[in-house]
This record gives sequence, C-alpha cells and structure tokens, in this order.
Amino acid sequence: MAEPRMSSIDGKLAEEFAVPSHVQEVKEKMAAFAACHAEVGRRVVLITSGGTKVPLESRTVRFLDNFSSGRRGASSAEYFIDSGYAVIFLHRHRSLYPYTRLFSTINMLDALQLRAGDSEGAGEVVVDQQVLPNIARVLKRYNEVKDGGLLLPIEFNTLSEYLHLLKASAQALSSIGSKAMFYLAAAVSDFYIPASEMPEHKIQSSNGPLQLSMKMVPKILSPLVKDWAPQAFVTSFKLETDPTILLDRARRALDTYRHQAVVANVLDSRRGYVVVVTPESRDELVVTEGDVEKGVEIEERIVSNLTTAHNEFITQQAAGRK
Amino acid sequence: MAEPRMSSIDGKLAEEFAVPSHVQEVKEKMAAFAACHAEVGRRVVLITSGGTKVPLESRTVRFLDNFSSGRRGASSAEYFIDSGYAVIFLHRHRSLYPYTRLFSTINMLDALQLRAGDSEGAGEVVVDQQVLPNIARVLKRYNEVKDGGLLLPIEFNTLSEYLHLLKASAQALSSIGSKAMFYLAAAVSDFYIPASEMPEHKIQSSNGPLQLSMKMVPKILSPLVKDWAPQAFVTSFKLETDPTILLDRARRALDTYRHQAVVANVLDSRRGYVVVVTPESRDELVVTEGDVEKGVEIEERIVSNLTTAHNEFITQQAAGRK
Repeated sequence: MAEPRMSSIDGKLAEEFAVPSHVQEVKEKMAAFAACHAEVGRRVVLITSGGTKVPLESRTVRFLDNFSSGRRGASSAEYFIDSGYAVIFLHRHRSLYPYTRLFSTINMLDALQLRAGDSEGAGEVVVDQQVLPNIARVLKRYNEVKDGGLLLPIEFNTLSEYLHLLKASAQALSSIGSKAMFYLAAAVSDFYIPASEMPEHKIQSSNGPLQLSMKMVPKILSPLVKDWAPQAFVTSFKLETDPTILLDRARRALDTYRHQAVVANVLDSRRGYVVVVTPESRDELVVTEGDVEKGVEIEERIVSNLTTAHNEFITQQAAGRK
Repeated sequence: MAEPRMSSIDGKLAEEFAVPSHVQEVKEKMAAFAACHAEVGRRVVLITSGGTKVPLESRTVRFLDNFSSGRRGASSAEYFIDSGYAVIFLHRHRSLYPYTRLFSTINMLDALQLRAGDSEGAGEVVVDQQVLPNIARVLKRYNEVKDGGLLLPIEFNTLSEYLHLLKASAQALSSIGSKAMFYLAAAVSDFYIPASEMPEHKIQSSNGPLQLSMKMVPKILSPLVKDWAPQAFVTSFKLETDPTILLDRARRALDTYRHQAVVANVLDSRRGYVVVVTPESRDELVVTEGDVEKGVEIEERIVSNLTTAHNEFITQQAAGRK
C-alpha cells in the first residue's frame, strides 16, 4: 500500500507547490556531501530550522508564517558537529545560524573599533572583546568547521521550497542508509493556499474583511519515512501551547509515521524542558536555571540523547541485516 | 465630525489591540528626543519600517506577516540624517537597520580574522577589509550618528505594538509642530483577528482545513493626520503589485486622509521607480541600472524630494500663522 500513498503526495507536491529551480543542483550537492563524509565513517544529520512562509498572493505581499527564530536548529547544529556529525542545515533565510547566533542580539557595529591608520590612512577595524567576550573562541571553532567542510547550509523561504528541498535531501541521504539522521526542527505550516486558488495581485483592503480558506499541507513525514529515506533515523518535533495534549500528540505521531523519535515541547517552557519520546521510551530532559547560568543549553542534552539512540539504531540495523 | 471618528478609532485601539506595557516610557523618550533636537533647530522624522506580525493565536505559533525586509526604511534613515534630520526609527524587530544593513548579506564570522596572540594568548580579532571594503567608512559614520544622538531606535513585533507606538510617537512629536515629518514606510497589515475572537491555543491541524475570518484594521492615518499630529508633514507609502491601479490608489489616499504626500511604488520595480504624489504634483523618481552600479539608491532621491517639500511646507505653515 506504500506505493499509491507516495504517488499521491508526490503528485500533490508537483502540482500544488512550485518546484524551486535549483532543487536538482542542491540535491547533487547534498548527495556529494553525504557520500564524502560517509566514506570517512562520519554520520550525517539533516537539520531543518526556522519557520516556513506561506504566500497568500502569487505576487506576494502577505504571507502566513510560523513562529521560530531558528535558535533550536542552529544550536543543535553546533552540538551535532561536536559529536562528530556532518550537518546539512536546511534553514529559513535570515533565521539564526550556527555560531553567529551567539551574537544575534548585538549590533555588530557596536562591537567594532576603528584604529587610527598609518600615514596612508588605512586604519584597522578590530573587535572590542569587552563587548564580544567569546568572539575569538567562537571564530576559531567556526573556521575549523568551515575548513573541515562539516556544515552545508541550504536556505528556504516558502513552504514550497521547504517541501521540495526536504524531499531532495531525503533522496540524497538515502545512499548512506542508517548513517543518516533527520532532525526536523523547522516550524512547518500545516495550512496553505494552493497555487490554483491564489489571487495573482495584492488583496485589496477596500474589498472588505478577509475570508481565507486554507488547505491542509500533505504530511511529508509519511513518504520520507516510508519511501525516500527508509533506513534513516528520523526525529520530528512537536510544539504545542497546551501541555495537556502534548504527549498524546507525540505518541500519535509515532504511531502514524513509524519513525524513531519525537521531541515534544511546550512553547512557554521549550528552553528548559523537553520530552524525547520513542516507541520504547520517554526521556524527560531538563535544564535548570542554575544550568542556564553556567551556559548549558537544552539542545546539548537533546543531541546527546539522540546520538546515543542513533548509535543503537545503527547497531540494530546492522544486526538485522546479518 | 472629527471628534467622534477619533474616539471611535481610539476606542478600537484600546479594546481590540493589546497595549504594550512600555508605551508610556517610549512616548516620553520620543518626546524628549524631539524636544532636544527641535531646540537646536533640527527637524525630526519618524520612520516606520518593516512588516507587522498579526497573531492567529493568543499563545502565538502562527501569524500573518507582510513582506518587507526593512531595506527602504533603513536606507532612508541614513539619507535623512545626512540631510540634517534626527530620526526616530520605529522598526520591526530584526528587520534591516541603518548602516548595519550594508553588511546584512554577509556572515560576520566570514569577515573576521584571528590574529595570533602574545604569550598570554590574548589574540586580536580584526575585520578583513577585503571582505568588507567599506567597513571603516561606515563604522566612522555610525559612530558619529551615535555620538550625535541622531538616531532613536524603537522596535515593534506585532500590529498591536505598531499601532500603539505610532500613536504615541505622533503625540510625542506634536509639540514640535511642522518640524516633524512622518515617513510611514512600514508594511502594515490591513487585516487582523480581534483578541476576543482569537483562540488561546495552537490551532490543531487535525481539525481539518483552516477558515480564517479577518477584520479590517482601523485606518490609523486618519486620526494621525487630523488629531494626533495635525501640524506635521505626513508621507505614506502605497505598494501595489498591479501598476494599473497604483496612481489611482495613491490619489484616493490623499483625498481620504488629506496628508502631504504618498510615495507610490510597484513591488517588482520598487528599487528603480517610485512616484511621489502630492495634492499639487506628481514626481517620477528613477534610478537607472547605471546609477545602481555607481551605488546610487532610490531612497536618496525620495528623501531629497521630500525634504524639499517639507521645507516649503514649513515656510507655508509659518506664513499661514502670520
């Protein structure tokens, strides 16, 4: 029964969501990245991060967005790299980025100083390390990661771009089997307006109040797990605002899609408390205020939990093949 | 007839749009800023910039947004300062910012270099001026503006914050009369969901397709021009995607609100062509591809056009009072 379901979502993807022109090029880049790292025994994680844009007009003035700074995805990327993974970072344009995220609240010009130049007037510009105390350490690490080719950034803006690029990434990573992890932290819209029902021009406010009728976005997790990357370790995220329904939704997602883990969290407490739910387990991860003062981030614990689970998963898969 | 209209919009603002807790504090800051600059004969422009967020849930996971990087507002701020104005920059959180906007496409860590430290290991971090060739000049100008106290940044996220802060700014600037200009470049939503009709929690996709019914945002330009800052020079912006209706909409806005100027532009050509429409005139401003190569921005021409008009406006107002 897998075949018709895949075709139906594939068909919808092609019909109702514009294919980005560079998708094939990106797919080849991701496949080459995965192959080269797998060859030296490195695992690869595909992280999605940030919110998707859902246009209301085809010449877009207005769009629906999902709240997400991209903080969780960006910090997780750093911890995955520290754990020996190579990272494909599929993120919303201008959302938070690994390493630079640490300075996102500072206007860079406030952290720079002009040093008087020589007779030719060529002054130097230096970073004021009182303003950015960690800059040297972070820059060093950033350059190591860049030189090691450990981080492949890919950008999306719209839901359409996200869906097609995620599909391409799953296909690109299928060649490395269980060595691939998907860490789907992006805030993806559940609703959209099909291209065929979208007005071309800006909706005029003189026409009166706005009635919007939005369709359900196809559940891409289903073909991803079943068809595109069936051997990979897949983690999805569940964000709710109502804590009473959270675990039920997480379990239901696992039952429906049959993937490996759901990271469940509540909007208000997402930086201090998450539950990693798998078919066999339920791990509560907490960082206290004391931890936060010491600079501990909950993403470090999430990544540690999942890389351990990924280890076991790879071992089991290998045993299963014998 | 002005009184009931003002009361009605004021009432709506208070009832249906949450008042930000810091609005009074910001208002006092803006009033002090305006007074201190007016005292030394400097004009003050209030620039709004970036798009407004319209939440769909009170614990917000989803929101409606208006496309805007904040580029026009941020660059205009620089040209107004160059023209002798002090600028209140009311902008969307994380939208483009004056001066830093020039480096917005570059990852700052790609532009920094670590210089080997002395024996104590305290290395310097310097800017690679091959990557950021203009950094010294821009930083110098940024510091002059900061030291001169010429730029007062105020942030908003939601439509509610925008509306209340704009009202506060108009009241704060009313004391300097015709020396104040409003340059309303923000992309403000025409539609919203009243607090009373908003669900508290995240809308569940399991409930099926989404029907949204959005009300019209009250036209705040009306009380701004009539009641809150009746002596100021007010410029609004009109962005359309359909060029055939643009000028008609611009004229209609002038007829309705009786303010001083509308900057009319079409989404696709907004960086190369705008029309400044006033009750008496229609100025087409163009930058060619050749201009762009020389680094000319259309905002320089818009600001030049409007500061000239503001001059005349002040002279007329003064003559009218005699």
